[in-house]
Amino acid sequence: MAKKLTSAILLVEGGRQDADLVYTSGFSAPDPVVLLVNGRRKSLVVSLLEFGRAKAEARVSEVLTPQLLGLEGVARNRLSQWAIAVVKRARLRTVRVSANFPVMIADQLREAGIRVEVSSGPLFPNRRQKSPAEIKEITKTQRAAVAAMRAAMEWIRSADRDRRGYLQQDGKRLTSERVRRLIEQRLLESDCAADETIVAGGCQGAEPHERGHGPLRTGQPIVIDIFPRHKQSGYCGDITRTVVHGQPTPEVARMLTAVKAAHGAALKAVRPGVAVKTIHGTAQETLLQYGFETTVKNGWGEGFIHSTGHGIGLEIHEAPSINLSSTRLMLGDVITIEPGLYYRRWGGVRIEDTVVVTREGAKILARCPYP
Amino acid sequence: MAKKLTSAILLVEGGRQDADLVYTSGFSAPDPVVLLVNGRRKSLVVSLLEFGRAKAEARVSEVLTPQLLGLEGVARNRLSQWAIAVVKRARLRTVRVSANFPVMIADQLREAGIRVEVSSGPLFPNRRQKSPAEIKEITKTQRAAVAAMRAAMEWIRSADRDRRGYLQQDGKRLTSERVRRLIEQRLLESDCAADETIVAGGCQGAEPHERGHGPLRTGQPIVIDIFPRHKQSGYCGDITRTVVHGQPTPEVARMLTAVKAAHGAALKAVRPGVAVKTIHGTAQETLLQYGFETTVKNGWGEGFIHSTGHGIGLEIHEAPSINLSSTRLMLGDVITIEPGLYYRRWGGVRIEDTVVVTREGAKILARCPYP
Repeated sequence: MAKKLTSAILLVEGGRQDADLVYTSGFSAPDPVVLLVNGRRKSLVVSLLEFGRAKAEARVSEVLTPQLLGLEGVARNRLSQWAIAVVKRARLRTVRVSANFPVMIADQLREAGIRVEVSSGPLFPNRRQKSPAEIKEITKTQRAAVAAMRAAMEWIRSADRDRRGYLQQDGKRLTSERVRRLIEQRLLESDCAADETIVAGGCQGAEPHERGHGPLRTGQPIVIDIFPRHKQSGYCGDITRTVVHGQPTPEVARMLTAVKAAHGAALKAVRPGVAVKTIHGTAQETLLQYGFETTVKNGWGEGFIHSTGHGIGLEIHEAPSINLSSTRLMLGDVITIEPGLYYRRWGGVRIEDTVVVTREGAKILARCPYP
Repeated sequence: MAKKLTSAILLVEGGRQDADLVYTSGFSAPDPVVLLVNGRRKSLVVSLLEFGRAKAEARVSEVLTPQLLGLEGVARNRLSQWAIAVVKRARLRTVRVSANFPVMIADQLREAGIRVEVSSGPLFPNRRQKSPAEIKEITKTQRAAVAAMRAAMEWIRSADRDRRGYLQQDGKRLTSERVRRLIEQRLLESDCAADETIVAGGCQGAEPHERGHGPLRTGQPIVIDIFPRHKQSGYCGDITRTVVHGQPTPEVARMLTAVKAAHGAALKAVRPGVAVKTIHGTAQETLLQYGFETTVKNGWGEGFIHSTGHGIGLEIHEAPSINLSSTRLMLGDVITIEPGLYYRRWGGVRIEDTVVVTREGAKILARCPYP
């Protein structure tokens, strides 16, 4: 096992969501790059057109290009050749890669006589435990999410209703699309982007990942889930509220009460050392106590059909998942707590906050009222 | 070769950029899903919480869940088990996967006795040739990009300059950040998102992928590169203009003239059947004729240091790359034409349009003035 822990790590990543690359080097690029982490030595290989930016921005020991690696002709354009060249240059015979490493490059490394250890867990386990600086960045994004949520809640609260029960703002029907745009404009003002924002009214909310569309009505639950990424830092935030304009139906009122109770109970269960299944179990039991059962029939699930939460950082979903596993929370984990209930007849209810695990338990990063 | 072409295709994708999945099934999800394309039969495996949405939205023959595949316990949470189960259910012994397929799942398929053919080219070569409906969607995104570009150009054009040459709007310094926010707000109004937008003034523009930061000055080249994605359709657009407030220096004026000429010459070279290297060569030669050489020294490249363009569709960069290869253009290719010059002393100049390849040559999808 000692050998596994000391293998050099090879990353081939690119695009905006290259969390391991950003975490290790502070660098990201629209096109793929190769990074070899050999103990403390980090060698980054980039194309010619990223060289200057990488020299200026990347926290690495050296920045290389295919040219500097001595590659010629078509090999200069082949990421697998970059990878083989940088590994051979370091005289390594084994590298460790992530489970998602591209199979073609892995196969070509193997053909070149390099052993490829595929990591089933995270390549950088320390990424889970957030530093004070990282918590500050996540909080910054979360504050932007809360500001956008407050604006959306106020817009829905202050809406008029027409004779048919549809919400109106500025003389026009209030739709999921309009609320989403308001939210995303607010996020942009804080330099945050959200490619997907959920504003799902009525039965649409019964699908946890339905974005929502069309006019919103009074008396219906409206699930608003905002999960932006800060454009500079790359750190994410995540918050959900379920609002009702006017009076909810008795069923939805009961769902709201139950989910709020499950959310509170799960939050209370958060502390360093606790198994995530204890937190998930607490949320499940609370919902059951309120009479809400989870059923699966022919593929359709109703009730509490997802985990209680997930880690969050440079990725919107990262370790640990707050599910049935025995993983234990640790100081510095940043996680969401987001129980929910989904019934096709009534719609969805979900309440979510993002918290950091402290010695005193869960600390909510940015407070937002529960309507 | 016939066998290769008829192998079933296995996708394990997730996230917003899952272009093959969206292309084949019309479905996307924030978490990974498995899709098996076996001739005309498409089997999609999703988690319980995506089942209803997948049933409603995915253009597939069947939607499965781990439960419906008969998986029990921890296997239900393992994508590799979903993949093995759906392949075995179809009684297949070979599957074809993309070069980027996750190595861990590929290895586990192999251990389960399934042959994994790794495709070096695209899994769905037809994705390159855009249908009229796709061209319409790309045009829609491109029009939003042009509207945002016009707003940004007008904002810079109408700016005042202070005594030190810094641009001013509304009594405040005009910065890259302010122009970028204006652009992204305009894009949002058209339901388009841009996680990265380049507004790079002066020497910053010498790095092709530098986003740009800080105050903008008169007399400097400012590279503005807008590449949004439509939030509904997922189709991308891409446009670049280089603007100068006031008088450019003689060097920058020469660069602007040369790049505009290279852009025009490359556009003229576009037609079905032409090798992409002919187009790239045309751009290179034109820039040389204007006296601009490309040099590489110790990793630093100056001059024309990237390809002339790239295919664009559900991905911002897709096939074909307009580089030194012998690939030939075909009717329905949608590509960018974007020659540029980069010198650390003077900054960057790039001009880019997105065009569709028609019988008559390049047709610009949305026109925008060249300042």
